[in-house]
Amino acid sequence: MVGARARVSGRVDFALNAVVPGMTHARLLRSPMPHARISSIDTSAAEKMPGVVAVLTAADFDRPGAPARYYGAVLRDQPVLCGEKVRFAGDPVAAVAAETEEQAAAALLEIEVDYEPLPAVGSVAEALAEGAPLVHEKPPLPREASYADIKFHGREGNVCTKFQLRSGDVEAGFAAADHIFDNTYHSPAVQHLTMEPHVVLARFEGERLTVTSSTQAPYAVRDTLAEMFGVASSKVRVIVPPIGGGYGGKTYAKFEPVTAALAWKARRPVKLVLPRDEEFLSLTKHAATIRMRTGVSSDGKLLARDVQVYFDAGAYTDISPRLIKNGGYSTAGPYAIPNVRIDSYAVYTNLPPAGAYRGYGVSQAAWAYEQQMDEMAEALGIDPVEFRRRNLLTEGERFATGEIMREAHWRELLDRTAEAIDYDTDRRVVVDEHRVRGKGVAVILKSTITPSTSHAAMRLDADGSLQVLTSSVEMGQGAHTVLAQLAAQPLGLPVSAVHVTEPDTQYTPYDQTTSSSRTTRAMGGALTSAAHVIREKLLKLAGDLLEVSPTDLELADGQVVAKGSPGVRMSVPEVFRRTRTGSISGDGEVITSGGLDPETGQGIASDHWHQGAAAAEVEVDLGTGKVYVRHVHSIAHAGRVVNPKLARLQMHGSTVFGISHALYEELVYDEGILTNPNLSDYSITAMGDMPAQLEVEFLEDEGEAEIHGLGETTLPPVIAAIGNAVRAAIGAPVRTLPITPERVLEARNS
Amino acid sequence: MVGARARVSGRVDFALNAVVPGMTHARLLRSPMPHARISSIDTSAAEKMPGVVAVLTAADFDRPGAPARYYGAVLRDQPVLCGEKVRFAGDPVAAVAAETEEQAAAALLEIEVDYEPLPAVGSVAEALAEGAPLVHEKPPLPREASYADIKFHGREGNVCTKFQLRSGDVEAGFAAADHIFDNTYHSPAVQHLTMEPHVVLARFEGERLTVTSSTQAPYAVRDTLAEMFGVASSKVRVIVPPIGGGYGGKTYAKFEPVTAALAWKARRPVKLVLPRDEEFLSLTKHAATIRMRTGVSSDGKLLARDVQVYFDAGAYTDISPRLIKNGGYSTAGPYAIPNVRIDSYAVYTNLPPAGAYRGYGVSQAAWAYEQQMDEMAEALGIDPVEFRRRNLLTEGERFATGEIMREAHWRELLDRTAEAIDYDTDRRVVVDEHRVRGKGVAVILKSTITPSTSHAAMRLDADGSLQVLTSSVEMGQGAHTVLAQLAAQPLGLPVSAVHVTEPDTQYTPYDQTTSSSRTTRAMGGALTSAAHVIREKLLKLAGDLLEVSPTDLELADGQVVAKGSPGVRMSVPEVFRRTRTGSISGDGEVITSGGLDPETGQGIASDHWHQGAAAAEVEVDLGTGKVYVRHVHSIAHAGRVVNPKLARLQMHGSTVFGISHALYEELVYDEGILTNPNLSDYSITAMGDMPAQLEVEFLEDEGEAEIHGLGETTLPPVIAAIGNAVRAAIGAPVRTLPITPERVLEARNS
Repeated sequence: MVGARARVSGRVDFALNAVVPGMTHARLLRSPMPHARISSIDTSAAEKMPGVVAVLTAADFDRPGAPARYYGAVLRDQPVLCGEKVRFAGDPVAAVAAETEEQAAAALLEIEVDYEPLPAVGSVAEALAEGAPLVHEKPPLPREASYADIKFHGREGNVCTKFQLRSGDVEAGFAAADHIFDNTYHSPAVQHLTMEPHVVLARFEGERLTVTSSTQAPYAVRDTLAEMFGVASSKVRVIVPPIGGGYGGKTYAKFEPVTAALAWKARRPVKLVLPRDEEFLSLTKHAATIRMRTGVSSDGKLLARDVQVYFDAGAYTDISPRLIKNGGYSTAGPYAIPNVRIDSYAVYTNLPPAGAYRGYGVSQAAWAYEQQMDEMAEALGIDPVEFRRRNLLTEGERFATGEIMREAHWRELLDRTAEAIDYDTDRRVVVDEHRVRGKGVAVILKSTITPSTSHAAMRLDADGSLQVLTSSVEMGQGAHTVLAQLAAQPLGLPVSAVHVTEPDTQYTPYDQTTSSSRTTRAMGGALTSAAHVIREKLLKLAGDLLEVSPTDLELADGQVVAKGSPGVRMSVPEVFRRTRTGSISGDGEVITSGGLDPETGQGIASDHWHQGAAAAEVEVDLGTGKVYVRHVHSIAHAGRVVNPKLARLQMHGSTVFGISHALYEELVYDEGILTNPNLSDYSITAMGDMPAQLEVEFLEDEGEAEIHGLGETTLPPVIAAIGNAVRAAIGAPVRTLPITPERVLEARNS
Repeated sequence: MVGARARVSGRVDFALNAVVPGMTHARLLRSPMPHARISSIDTSAAEKMPGVVAVLTAADFDRPGAPARYYGAVLRDQPVLCGEKVRFAGDPVAAVAAETEEQAAAALLEIEVDYEPLPAVGSVAEALAEGAPLVHEKPPLPREASYADIKFHGREGNVCTKFQLRSGDVEAGFAAADHIFDNTYHSPAVQHLTMEPHVVLARFEGERLTVTSSTQAPYAVRDTLAEMFGVASSKVRVIVPPIGGGYGGKTYAKFEPVTAALAWKARRPVKLVLPRDEEFLSLTKHAATIRMRTGVSSDGKLLARDVQVYFDAGAYTDISPRLIKNGGYSTAGPYAIPNVRIDSYAVYTNLPPAGAYRGYGVSQAAWAYEQQMDEMAEALGIDPVEFRRRNLLTEGERFATGEIMREAHWRELLDRTAEAIDYDTDRRVVVDEHRVRGKGVAVILKSTITPSTSHAAMRLDADGSLQVLTSSVEMGQGAHTVLAQLAAQPLGLPVSAVHVTEPDTQYTPYDQTTSSSRTTRAMGGALTSAAHVIREKLLKLAGDLLEVSPTDLELADGQVVAKGSPGVRMSVPEVFRRTRTGSISGDGEVITSGGLDPETGQGIASDHWHQGAAAAEVEVDLGTGKVYVRHVHSIAHAGRVVNPKLARLQMHGSTVFGISHALYEELVYDEGILTNPNLSDYSITAMGDMPAQLEVEFLEDEGEAEIHGLGETTLPPVIAAIGNAVRAAIGAPVRTLPITPERVLEARNS
């Protein structure tokens, strides 16, 4: 991997290391209550504290020349700082910039805020209850022209937005079914826990704002800040150094607005490094409650499915409207179900906001549908793999959204993964009186953000060096390595000749976001186009010099060579020198189209589909209820793998995340207060929890196959496969994640 | 001017203000002798001084893994630090990086250097004398593939390089002449005196080197550093913030090599800010001695010219081989002379190196030929303007290089400027017994760097903002303002929608250099092409949406409008939104061709010619010899003026420089030691020296005319016009610049 040595030896220039002259340090004052009216804020004592440069509150916004206070990816419902009320315990109320971080922290203690507590809603159930207190009194404003595919219907009470899908005739389907299964599954909120926290450094030069940020979405941040300050987008420059993990938690503007507003007030550069405990308040994966009714025929054909999905959006919308759409239609699973009705809701609660998280709603959906598949198989007396096989989408079949599936590989993926753990043998084994083992499988489909746009530019220099200008973010996933490979290939260059620049909206072209497992395919495609533009220009120049038609020339090892006449050649630097060319530029783009009808959910949900499967074997201690994962095998359809080592690492990461979600991770709230915002009380997979056997596998297509992203594909099925393995072991389903010892014991005893 | 407010209020981010974490500060130890052998350097005491991080000497170079010690724009003859010997008083011998600049300065005092003095050459005359000591014992190596148009003949003794031009039959021309004039003219070395000194900040991340520098030539610096460290050019990133004046003194690598080498040794970022007294040792305008023999017919036709030009290159070559070429052929002047022989020499001396300086050899040449024109006119009894008119090049005539002149405007320029000072009236006036007044004119031609290459890239963003990626340097001349205007125009955008980025070789395409008055024309042309590429792409997208042929669409005020149907329109942001385009990129280039035969000087010297004239009226105090400039008028052929205010400011600057060179500026050496490296002893034009009347004028062509640069065009004629005015006043020529009171008195008494 490019830059691997720098990364492991601590020499990466993370935003954390950024320093500019006159820089001040920021800290945020946060609400101690989940829901309260703010009756007054007194910052006068704090302003006099040593080293304090500026204290920012809601009063500084929305005046002539001042920034707007509300922002948001879809709806402008999130205040940079709370004014009239706070909506979750941790909601920022004031920000301080001081010469040192310690001085800023000390000043926070001197800010006097008077709160009038309000009744709070701490869950979707409470939020939807009759007469529940409202998190947002008035519906927030949609951003102009954003998300034309989202219909903002169903917004009443604490419902933020709703997605609905209607396919076939569900009631008729149920009427025809021999069995109807009706189960409810729960996934908790979890946190992204990136190694690097959110870091923002903001500085103004005149009205030009430069932000260095650990963001996955430089352009989204730029546009949000330009909107907030009411300036042209060219007045905002967003620079993104390599970041230390994202997993969705750094998409869209997060702490850039408050840091920039503080820099604006302080008239000094301001740097914010979010403390670890505040990371837990920054954004979460959506907790979800999914009620799934599925009608099946006796011979194991899925006939109808009716789903209500409740995603807990927390206090602010963030990207929930789009996530509940993806998480919504995904509950149909990779199955051909003729009659489907899905209602997917984003519900406001007085909890930290939820947003993008690796898997993007699919983990929650798959947890429901793949658990239910096993439960139904058992009830029907059909082997779970065989039951899935009878229903999996095949080439040319119609998904619930109406789109026709192409390159459908689910059966093969399922078969391979089942075989890898020898699923048909010893599906349940009693080891001794305390220990049982079980095996489980799961198979999923996942969309990628559609429609989407990526642009790239490249420049070939006179010595054969290639500068790749991309706004794709290197976050440890190896994006810049893979992009360097793809850029080098059409130009016959070694990867060492390529430099992939860090995103900088002043210089690097538009890219929608580095998320949704889209970068290798979308940005890689844009780069490949750009490389071909440069290739054509170069061969034209060389052809004129060599008196050979450009179509009869090829590029290899830094040389332009006539096909079939290897003696007729010229080095790339010589072509530049002879033509006095200084550099050759080229650009390329990948723009995908699609979208769903907001009334019916029919259309194109995904430009192409990510397909994955996993199998797991667990051992359960019946005395303690503790689950030990013995073996995990996961497989993803990759089309073409660009860099096998990095691709495997992505899938290893998904597996570890999957184990963690299956067994350990959960944000626990007590009266709306997060009780475990630290790494002692919030558990993740540790080295000792890793299975003895862990394999990952790609399914590759023949020949010049398309590239498919695989950064998230096997996270959802690992969770579900572990769940099914536990069910196989203990003979009862645990429908609520994580599968804690308590829940295992409870399931056995129920 | 874009950024004018920031510039005048001290808020420009000059390299001087750059700070990075862990930054150390550099100082250089310089030779106290003009020529000496170094017998030993002992840095042990300096290394132990407080705060010292690294001490660098010649011993650190040219070992495996170490940088090369010699560099140079044309010949690698300049050591980053001297090893075997020093070649001028001020030649750097060691460099120290320390935590503070004061600590670095203190450590310099502890470095012990033993010198064995060598006899030195302090002028061209001394350097060319029989048996003169050699500045360079062995001829240095030409850089591979550089300057194919320079023949390195004539390099013997202290001659660095020679340029020769042979046109017609000079001996026959002289034989046919009625009069032969044989005069010698001198110009001194002067310093650029930029407001901002040379500043370099260098830092390594692994083998990647990033340099922030106040350079006019980011790519030349990049290539020199890549060569020096033996790495691909993509491993070196050169960033150029706005700079505080260049005038040629910041072209090619200057202090980047030593700062980068120090950063390499210190393993820490290093910043060097050159103190003002060391600026005087950095680079100078070439002192020149020009012997000019011109044969004329009785009716005032120039028949033959034979010139020997001796440029004092100082201790190192820098760009002398090219400058003596331009300064050489320029001695033919803007005149049709059928027989010309020119021998132009760059001569090494033990003085600070000479290189590019606003005017690039033309000031020195024009000082000779325009003084001689007046002297010859007087001798022939012909009016000086009339005498010039009879010989000035006209449309289609042949210049001494053999090229045919197009767009020849010299007569018009001369007539206008002569008229502006009422040249025909009171050419000499006796004011009283102490004071006389005189008037003078001068007319010149100046080439621009040819061949040359400029590339540009641009990006139009969804809100109609335009990012211009150019490596042209903003150095106070307003380049970025003019380039913004040219970029905006084809896209129908306001200038406020354009942001011109600072040069950064990681992102901005190749540009040869910001010098030679080439930026507005060459980079402006490249940007215009790039803008048209974007325009076409945008109109194509809009045409598809509006169902109108792109050729029937036009752009105005951020709207795409159907020609003749103003109702059929769409805003630019709407085109982006509807097509899901994120940004539209385009690139363009201007590559000019030309070059001269090294044996004959025949060919294409300049892609186009800069044409200028000036007239001056002076008053001379016959008692003190002091010259007062009363009135200066200068005029340049501009083709098309893009920004009249900035163009005027450029010409005002040229006028002030011209007065300064005519009357005040001179680097004075005593035994090879510079005696006036400060602004007390080195005089430049002060506000009190400014003429009461100062006008500048452009000659513009009709219609969609070409753009001609004008940043240097009127500097040479202002000097010569003042010289001719003094001669008119006192009745005797002063052939040596500057025209000091002593020289005036001496001329009157001779």
